[in-house]
Amino acid sequence: MNRRTLLGSALIGGAATAASAASAAQSAAPRASGRTGPLNLITDVEGIKIGQAHDAGVRTGVTVILAEKPAVAAVDVRGGGPAGRETDVLKPENLVQEVDAIVLSGGSVYGLASGDGIAAWMGMRGRGYGMGGAPGVPPSPIVPTACLYDLANGGDKKWEMDPPYRRLAVEALEAAGDRFDLGTAGAGYGAEAGALKGGIGSASALMANGWTVGAIVAVNSVGAVVAPNGKTFWAAPFEIGDEFGGLGSAGLAASAEDWGLSKGRARPRENTTLACIATDVALTRVECQRVAIMAQDGMARAIRPSHAPFDGDTLFCLSTGKKEITDPAMRQVAVAQLGNVAADVLARAIARGVYHAANYEGQTGKTWREL
Amino acid sequence: MNRRTLLGSALIGGAATAASAASAAQSAAPRASGRTGPLNLITDVEGIKIGQAHDAGVRTGVTVILAEKPAVAAVDVRGGGPAGRETDVLKPENLVQEVDAIVLSGGSVYGLASGDGIAAWMGMRGRGYGMGGAPGVPPSPIVPTACLYDLANGGDKKWEMDPPYRRLAVEALEAAGDRFDLGTAGAGYGAEAGALKGGIGSASALMANGWTVGAIVAVNSVGAVVAPNGKTFWAAPFEIGDEFGGLGSAGLAASAEDWGLSKGRARPRENTTLACIATDVALTRVECQRVAIMAQDGMARAIRPSHAPFDGDTLFCLSTGKKEITDPAMRQVAVAQLGNVAADVLARAIARGVYHAANYEGQTGKTWREL
Repeated sequence: MNRRTLLGSALIGGAATAASAASAAQSAAPRASGRTGPLNLITDVEGIKIGQAHDAGVRTGVTVILAEKPAVAAVDVRGGGPAGRETDVLKPENLVQEVDAIVLSGGSVYGLASGDGIAAWMGMRGRGYGMGGAPGVPPSPIVPTACLYDLANGGDKKWEMDPPYRRLAVEALEAAGDRFDLGTAGAGYGAEAGALKGGIGSASALMANGWTVGAIVAVNSVGAVVAPNGKTFWAAPFEIGDEFGGLGSAGLAASAEDWGLSKGRARPRENTTLACIATDVALTRVECQRVAIMAQDGMARAIRPSHAPFDGDTLFCLSTGKKEITDPAMRQVAVAQLGNVAADVLARAIARGVYHAANYEGQTGKTWREL
Repeated sequence: MNRRTLLGSALIGGAATAASAASAAQSAAPRASGRTGPLNLITDVEGIKIGQAHDAGVRTGVTVILAEKPAVAAVDVRGGGPAGRETDVLKPENLVQEVDAIVLSGGSVYGLASGDGIAAWMGMRGRGYGMGGAPGVPPSPIVPTACLYDLANGGDKKWEMDPPYRRLAVEALEAAGDRFDLGTAGAGYGAEAGALKGGIGSASALMANGWTVGAIVAVNSVGAVVAPNGKTFWAAPFEIGDEFGGLGSAGLAASAEDWGLSKGRARPRENTTLACIATDVALTRVECQRVAIMAQDGMARAIRPSHAPFDGDTLFCLSTGKKEITDPAMRQVAVAQLGNVAADVLARAIARGVYHAANYEGQTGKTWREL
C-alpha cells in the first residue's frame, strides 16, 4: 500500500484566481471569474474533512467524507447501475436527519464494506445515532456509501474472502484532514473517465455573501469529459483561473453520435461517477435534496453522455449548518443559488479529477496530460 | 385569436446541414456536424403530429403532441414546481403502457384543462384505452399534460369561470400536422426564457443507422439560455449548421453566481420548461424512462440554472415503435445512444425556441435577435 506518494499525483493547495495565464490564442474569449476557497477543495467547507486510502496492487481505493458533527444530508441517484448502502435512510419521510460520514468507494458491491468499517470504528468510539444510550448499546453511525465499478481495471482482484475495502476505509478515516490528493487517489484510484484515466476531483466556491460550496467526485464515467477531437474539458465554461488547464471554451463541439473519448464498449456496472456536495449553509434535508438535484446538472455539463444505463451516478449533498439563512422568505432563492453554484463546482471538480490523474506506475498513455 | 399568422414567428421547414455559414471569426473553431431530419422538427419522427393554438389577448397557448397510434411513454419530473396531470399513469408498475397524446400548455393549474379537452374529443371518436368496449362505455384516452406558468406575463387573464385552455387544446388538436410555428406559438406563446422572450422550440436528429429522435420544448425557464455578457447559446456545442445563429462556443463562460439573462426575481411557479422527446425506435416504458432521464441533461446543458425550485421542469419521452432494435444484447447500448442523442436534440430545440421567438405585437426589446 502506498497511500500518499503516488507517482505523479498532486497534493493540491492554494486558491485559484480569475487571473488566467491562458495562451494568447484564447485571450480574446470570455472566461469565468469567481473565487474559490483557500484550498479550492471541499474541505474549504467548515466541518468537512477528507480521508483517502488506496491499494496500488488492487488498483482501488476509498474516499471518506467526514462530517465533524452530524450533517444534514440528501442523495440523488440518477445513474442506471448504482451500488449503494444507507441511501433509503436519507429519504425525507424517514427518521434520521443527519449523517456521520459519506463514503465513496471503488470495488462495486465489494466496496459496500467500506461503510461497515467506518460504522464499526465510529460506533466503538461512541459516535452515531442513538435511541437513548443504554449501557452496552452501541450507537448507530449513519454512513451512506456509494461504490463505483473498478473490478476490470487490471488490478489484482483475487481477494476471495478478504476484499480490502473495510481496511482501506478505516485507514482513510484515520488519515482525514484538510488536504488530500487529487487524481489517482482514494475512490478514484482505479477509475476511468471514459477513455482517459479518471480520478478524484475537488473544487470549491466562496460566494460573495461568504457562503462556501465544495464538491468532491470520483470520475469513472462511461462518458467523455472532453469534447471530441481535442482536449477541451466540457466543464471549460466554468473554469476559474487555470485550475484545469485554462484552454477556454472554443473547442466545445460534438456531433450527436460522437461520444469522443468515452468508453468504447460500455457495459453495465463498469462505470459510475460518485459525487458529494457540501455547504456550510444550514439547510433542511429537503433543501439539500433540491441542491443535489441541481448539482447533478453539473455532471450533465461536464460529462457526455452522463446518467447512462451503465452509470450508477450517485450524488450526495451535505449541510454542515454553520451559517444560517437569515431571511426566511429567501430560503428557496438561496437554495437555487446554492444549487447553481454546486453544479458549477461539481463540473469543475470533475475536470480537475481528470486533469490531475496520473497513470498507474509503469504505464503510460491514459491521461489527459498526454493527449 | 390569431393562430397562425403571428408577427415575426417563423413557419420552419428544411433540413439544416453541417455546412455552416458561420462568420470568419468562428471558422477556426470546431463545429458539430450531424444530420437533422427533413424538417428539423419532432414531426420527423414517424407517427408524431403537432398541433398548436394560442390566444394573443390572453398571451397563452397550447401544444398537442399527437401520437397517431398509442405510443409507449415515460415522464421525468425534475423541477421543483410542476403542474401535471396523468403522470402517475406512466409509472412502470402501473397498468397502461401507452398514451394517445401529450399536452404542453400555458396557464399553470388552469392549463390542466387542456388535457380534458383532448380526452373528450378523442373519447367521442372512440379513441382511448378500453377495458372491453361495452356499448355506451367511452374509452379512456390517456393524455398526460404538463403546464408552465405564464399567468403574470401581462395578458388578459380575467377569464373567471372560463379559462381558454380546453378550447385552445381542441383547436390545437384539430390543426395537428407535420409543420408548425416555432418561437412565440403554442404553449410557448406566453413563455419567457429567463430575461428573454421564450417560445416553442423543436429539432430532430437522423442517426447513422436510420433512427430518428426529435424534441419539442416550451422554454419558460428561470435560467438563462445564453451565457452572460453575450448572446452565445449554452447549446452552442451541439448546434447543427446555423440552426440558431451559428456563433460557435467560444463565448461560453459563466461565473458561479452570475445567472446572466435569467429571471431577475424568481418566484415559485412563474417558470417551468416543458419538453417531449420522441423516437421511432421501439422501446419499452422502462427504456423510455432512461431516455427521458438522459434527455434532461440536454436541459441542464442548454439552460443555466435549470431544475431550480421555481421550475416545474417536466420531460416526456415517446416511442412510436416503428423500428425494432434487432439485437437483444444491444438494447441497453441503444438506449444510451438514444438518450445521448435526445439530450443534444433537446438542447438544440431549446435554443431554437428562443432563437425564433418574436415579441408580442406592439412590443420590442425582449428577443434574442435584439440582443
